[in-house]
Amino acid sequence: MDSISEKLNNSISEKLNQELNLEKSVGIVETKYFTFAIPPEEFVLSNGSKLGPVTIAYETYGNLNEDKSNAILIFHALSGDAHAAGYNNPDDKKPGWWDMMIGPGKPFDTNKYFVICSNIIGGCKGSTGPSSINPQTGKPYGITFPVITIKDMIIPQKKLLDYLGIKKLFCAAGGSMGGMQLLQWLVLYPEMSKGAMIIATSPNHTAQAIAFNSVGRFAIIQDPDWNNGNYYNGKRPDRGLSIARMIGHITYLSEESMHRKFGRKIITGKTSQTDIADFTKEFEVESYLQYQGESFIKRFDANSYLYITKAIDDFDITDGYENLADAFKNIKAKCFVISFTSDWLYPKEQSMKIVKALKVNGIETTYTNFESPYGHDSFLIEDERLKRLFAGFLKSLEEQP
Amino acid sequence: MDSISEKLNNSISEKLNQELNLEKSVGIVETKYFTFAIPPEEFVLSNGSKLGPVTIAYETYGNLNEDKSNAILIFHALSGDAHAAGYNNPDDKKPGWWDMMIGPGKPFDTNKYFVICSNIIGGCKGSTGPSSINPQTGKPYGITFPVITIKDMIIPQKKLLDYLGIKKLFCAAGGSMGGMQLLQWLVLYPEMSKGAMIIATSPNHTAQAIAFNSVGRFAIIQDPDWNNGNYYNGKRPDRGLSIARMIGHITYLSEESMHRKFGRKIITGKTSQTDIADFTKEFEVESYLQYQGESFIKRFDANSYLYITKAIDDFDITDGYENLADAFKNIKAKCFVISFTSDWLYPKEQSMKIVKALKVNGIETTYTNFESPYGHDSFLIEDERLKRLFAGFLKSLEEQP
Repeated sequence: MDSISEKLNNSISEKLNQELNLEKSVGIVETKYFTFAIPPEEFVLSNGSKLGPVTIAYETYGNLNEDKSNAILIFHALSGDAHAAGYNNPDDKKPGWWDMMIGPGKPFDTNKYFVICSNIIGGCKGSTGPSSINPQTGKPYGITFPVITIKDMIIPQKKLLDYLGIKKLFCAAGGSMGGMQLLQWLVLYPEMSKGAMIIATSPNHTAQAIAFNSVGRFAIIQDPDWNNGNYYNGKRPDRGLSIARMIGHITYLSEESMHRKFGRKIITGKTSQTDIADFTKEFEVESYLQYQGESFIKRFDANSYLYITKAIDDFDITDGYENLADAFKNIKAKCFVISFTSDWLYPKEQSMKIVKALKVNGIETTYTNFESPYGHDSFLIEDERLKRLFAGFLKSLEEQP
Repeated sequence: MDSISEKLNNSISEKLNQELNLEKSVGIVETKYFTFAIPPEEFVLSNGSKLGPVTIAYETYGNLNEDKSNAILIFHALSGDAHAAGYNNPDDKKPGWWDMMIGPGKPFDTNKYFVICSNIIGGCKGSTGPSSINPQTGKPYGITFPVITIKDMIIPQKKLLDYLGIKKLFCAAGGSMGGMQLLQWLVLYPEMSKGAMIIATSPNHTAQAIAFNSVGRFAIIQDPDWNNGNYYNGKRPDRGLSIARMIGHITYLSEESMHRKFGRKIITGKTSQTDIADFTKEFEVESYLQYQGESFIKRFDANSYLYITKAIDDFDITDGYENLADAFKNIKAKCFVISFTSDWLYPKEQSMKIVKALKVNGIETTYTNFESPYGHDSFLIEDERLKRLFAGFLKSLEEQP
């Protein structure tokens, strides 16, 4: 099943390397906004709740070709957003979250493709979510925001494509929760994508994965500053949200990568046997996790964290179907499934279930269990081999009628 | 290396089964107290701090024989205590934490052995710890309690044995943090035990294991009710401690056992798509974890949790030695090392490091990677095969000169 990697190494890697050397950024990009379900219209969610208007923040990179056949839709993960590549401001220190993959000469090559990424509803980066103002009350929704599902996240993205006049995607791609959105997309719109890149994901959460998310949510709602979700005019539940993020972060890394990066290293100047107890800042790994928590609370909304992790835990692509193969029966896309050897949150067995169910339906599927020490987050870590695999799959799609 | 299990199944299992059928409880036991370092004497801790008086709560089961050669010392794990077997009161609903292993006809057979278990210092079940009154101030120590190490936990247990007149143990046994105490015991008192049962433990914590403990500690100190450790006259940091326990609990179970027990089951009457968001009590596994948190705060002190998990994270049996084999060089005990196939907190590789270092020193060592779906907690789960292994090792010790 690693044939793509081999093929690439032999036949096109040289050409690709030349392209990679030309790598550059998509540059300054503007986040755009698309609004639908404008009253009296409404967006009806999976549970029957109604929401409107609904705004979706999105970014696009590259140009849509004349026959609108070169669009690639990227679904983001839990803490992602529409800003997948380039810079929103000239003084931004970091580019978008998947900049290594999206740009001229990069795998999602903006010289060839029109790449779209939008923030999910329920999020907090420009799309309608619990921190948005409810027009009926003039106040943030808070936990009056309706329960959302992964399905509720993708329907607005279909509406965005309709608005952009795109009838069929050249490819759709997503990792982690982005992969769940993609599975849901393929099931709901089985003929809408020529290719699909299903990355480090799962048909549904195990009890253990639910447990980790649930303790994170518990930490948020137990934070007195959460205040039943009404904190937008006061102190935010930073403690709870940072604890949730720290727990999550451990599950995104592998034991091996934590060992390589931190091992049992002590922060300089600290010893393991000081006079006064220091309960949380002795080991480097502790300081690192706290930094992750502190950074996260600056950019994420605690209520969004509750809604999105809940949607992830609730997600089961087999719901309403006899089994996974039954759910996948109408899919017409060529599929690329990738898991990572050190990902213990969504281990390879979960990707292999997806592969098996696709193959049972005769769907053309390539699968790689990619050797990487970086755990679940591997798909976000710069890796030339990974880029080549991605580029190789997209090239194989181009070659297909 | 599974020879013990085989031997037992063939030669003595029948006899053992008869014994197991005679199983009964040690009955009502009284927790006793031993105090040392009574001023002007002091107990000097690893970091040079001084503490006194120091009280150790302990229980004993069975009778010490005339030549005091039948004593078994049990080291407890993080949330354990001196009450390892039997009942403290006639209306106790649950027996001690290792009742399945200790009692007449059980592996630690109280018809033959004199079994001792004491609560560690730093604990909150009768031994001197942060919730104890500091005689110099008349107030609980709180975080003025000195930083403790695993070594500081075992020295008082040696003093207890001195007090009981026991010069050499027939056996010492401990799982998890109890196993760390045992490794430290063997290194510090290499000739004091005829046998040693080193269960589901590690020579030191990985970065990942430190990370899980650290987030738990962070949750406690971030709880406003923690109040810098001064909460004994007010509201306790129950939220923080329950979050810490929930995180810990996930690491004690295996993915498999959580899947078997809970899977994706929804609590009766709840659906995955209700109108109003329920962020933490929809799946059975969520309710279970919260129950674990709620039970724990009733029986454990948050400051003790901080001190003990810190001691665990700081523990490295190779500290002061060239390597593990060097640390073990003087050990005279016959060793039994056991890991559990589904234990991902202390996976078999860590036990195998211990085994290798023991064998390098020519120490007679038996090792089993025990097939169990219950994760790290397997050694606390009733299992006849496990009991037979334990009894078999103790029998082999009896047969030794």
